[in-house]
Amino acid sequence: MNFEQFFRSELDGLHEEGRYRVFADLERQRGQFPKARRHTADGVKDVTVWCSNDYLGMGQHPKVIDAMKQAIDHCGAGAGGTRNISGTTHYHVLLEQELADLHGKESALLFTSGYVSNWAALGTLCSRIPGIIVFSDAGNHASMIEGIRHAKCERVIFKHNSVADLEAKLAAADPAAPKLVAFESVYSMDGDIAPIKEICDVAERYGAMTYLDEVHAVGMYGPRGGGIAEREGLMHRLTVIEGTLGKAFGVMGGYIAASAALCDYIRSFASGFIFTTALPPALAAGALASIRHLKESQVERFAHQERVRRLRSLLDRNGIPHLPNPSHIVPVIVGDAAKCKWISDLLLDNCGIYVQPINYPTVPKKTERLRITPTPLHSDGDIDHLVGALHQLWSRCALARAVA
Amino acid sequence: MNFEQFFRSELDGLHEEGRYRVFADLERQRGQFPKARRHTADGVKDVTVWCSNDYLGMGQHPKVIDAMKQAIDHCGAGAGGTRNISGTTHYHVLLEQELADLHGKESALLFTSGYVSNWAALGTLCSRIPGIIVFSDAGNHASMIEGIRHAKCERVIFKHNSVADLEAKLAAADPAAPKLVAFESVYSMDGDIAPIKEICDVAERYGAMTYLDEVHAVGMYGPRGGGIAEREGLMHRLTVIEGTLGKAFGVMGGYIAASAALCDYIRSFASGFIFTTALPPALAAGALASIRHLKESQVERFAHQERVRRLRSLLDRNGIPHLPNPSHIVPVIVGDAAKCKWISDLLLDNCGIYVQPINYPTVPKKTERLRITPTPLHSDGDIDHLVGALHQLWSRCALARAVA
Repeated sequence: MNFEQFFRSELDGLHEEGRYRVFADLERQRGQFPKARRHTADGVKDVTVWCSNDYLGMGQHPKVIDAMKQAIDHCGAGAGGTRNISGTTHYHVLLEQELADLHGKESALLFTSGYVSNWAALGTLCSRIPGIIVFSDAGNHASMIEGIRHAKCERVIFKHNSVADLEAKLAAADPAAPKLVAFESVYSMDGDIAPIKEICDVAERYGAMTYLDEVHAVGMYGPRGGGIAEREGLMHRLTVIEGTLGKAFGVMGGYIAASAALCDYIRSFASGFIFTTALPPALAAGALASIRHLKESQVERFAHQERVRRLRSLLDRNGIPHLPNPSHIVPVIVGDAAKCKWISDLLLDNCGIYVQPINYPTVPKKTERLRITPTPLHSDGDIDHLVGALHQLWSRCALARAVA
Repeated sequence: MNFEQFFRSELDGLHEEGRYRVFADLERQRGQFPKARRHTADGVKDVTVWCSNDYLGMGQHPKVIDAMKQAIDHCGAGAGGTRNISGTTHYHVLLEQELADLHGKESALLFTSGYVSNWAALGTLCSRIPGIIVFSDAGNHASMIEGIRHAKCERVIFKHNSVADLEAKLAAADPAAPKLVAFESVYSMDGDIAPIKEICDVAERYGAMTYLDEVHAVGMYGPRGGGIAEREGLMHRLTVIEGTLGKAFGVMGGYIAASAALCDYIRSFASGFIFTTALPPALAAGALASIRHLKESQVERFAHQERVRRLRSLLDRNGIPHLPNPSHIVPVIVGDAAKCKWISDLLLDNCGIYVQPINYPTVPKKTERLRITPTPLHSDGDIDHLVGALHQLWSRCALARAVA
């Protein structure tokens, strides 16, 4: 087989479908975020980032920056080993305690990323509990799907956010089988929110564990930033809450919070936890500072929500169609991969606005979109500029307007 | 099912087998490595770390420290998104160029960890190339095994480091099927080294791609730290070289280096690459500084090898049995999980020597060991102290001596 030819022809397919990804080469400017510098073949240009998951701008918060630099000064760059073999530092221990406290759980366990936390935790639970059946929301993230797939257990997909479908499927399953319901709170691409209470009610009725991914909610919702489950007073009803340190907390890494026995079990049996170098102490220190700050400060959350409301209302006033949802994610649907990329390129090259086009497989075909994420640091001027640019493009490209 | 009871009883099993892991809670001291502070219930104690994979102490090198702090000052904490969605910074771009150059390849691709790089790259190659057969060394790391397992392709395990067995198995396979041979250069637990040239010869004869994991070699071998394949002039013969930024380079992250088409293919199709937050810019900057330094400086490599020789010769003089191997890893075999942990505890509590016991599943049962990793920063006094302590313990515990 000519492997090179194979790779090239597969890549050609992506080009033809208009979904070949070109990464924007950015230099974030600390203190200036969401402004950044973009490296191009023609030199460096200024852009405003409108698609970051550093939702609250904590990636440049002085407390986070200082904590990271102090940790580097104090103990160096990397952890130097797996958690078991010299890689556990005191920052990891403190961070796990902080995360357990954040979610009102006995324990928490860190992973190198949110992806790995889902993959490893679900993969371990679902492969090692004999006869387990997993009920997985149809909209779950790739990392959850891969974890469940890894486990090779029986899996049942229920309709996205449908409590009725989940209940019907739980009722149809062997009553004696152990069960787990896996779902998210805020779904990243549509920004809709799960009916957590109702899912917990149904899961409880059928003796199922509940596994909730809150990666797009931690830091941003609830009085201490514990996520949607905290806001709704439901954290105690979830068996596992999974979160990330790489979005609203502004750093990198993932975690689960759960009972001491469950965390110890994952710690002891998950390949993706055991056989990998621990997070650098500086990342743990930065995340710790970020979580502690957002446990007490409401300023970022309030400002964030206000910015989201303002953007939506200006989009509405200009007839730019966006998915209505109760979260901070503003999806402007284009519905065509090539057109989506083209609009994104125009915004970037002509207007200094960076919104990456979201195409298949991240979202289903025909729902290609601009996924806009306002932060507390986007000014009125930034919002006006974005909406103005979209307004012009919508006219120029004869894109459908929202009905007022 | 009572899940809590299930988790606890599984953990009880680990306790009974003597392989329940207790993490040492360390504070590395920048500038003092391999010295560290250990947090215990009785307070903080000083230890010398003898089991770090920060093999050259680059985790505290001033160039690495400065590069990380400068990157934090310049652009903040996290990357804020996946590589495709606002998470590619200029540091990532430069680091990938540096890694491609290090291995003499057209391209390189970063992952959040070495584990993820193996899992995602092998998982993608082996699941997407129709009909591929993977020939995997019996000693391969968990991350490679999980990647291959993920792919659900046909897999053939060949005897560890056996070119004859590999050839027999390649010869027995369908000549028309695409093939990939996956192996490591330095095997972490025994410290033995693969016959890379002979494996490439055989693979070439059967038209197979070669995938070499150099995580325990990059930075330490070869005139520019490109690994064993560089030292032996073989880099151009490998289809893929995989490495880590978390061991000798002292930071965190993983990568592959290969042809432009292959890297672009993995970039475009690997779930574990696409759907995860990019490494923080500071980690990329630190790794970049570390690689650049080790491309030019031989000081760390020479000192490292000298320290390894000195430790081995003192172990020999004291009759402490260690696996002979041509690498920097010094495995002192104990052969019993409980005894291995007991020795490690005594070293830690009584002598301030930290060597984590390595038990199943990291190594096969009955080969439990102390895996000792000297660094250029271990002094003569450190080595004397370690060997003296082992000498006393060997007498006290009536452990077998090596025959002189």
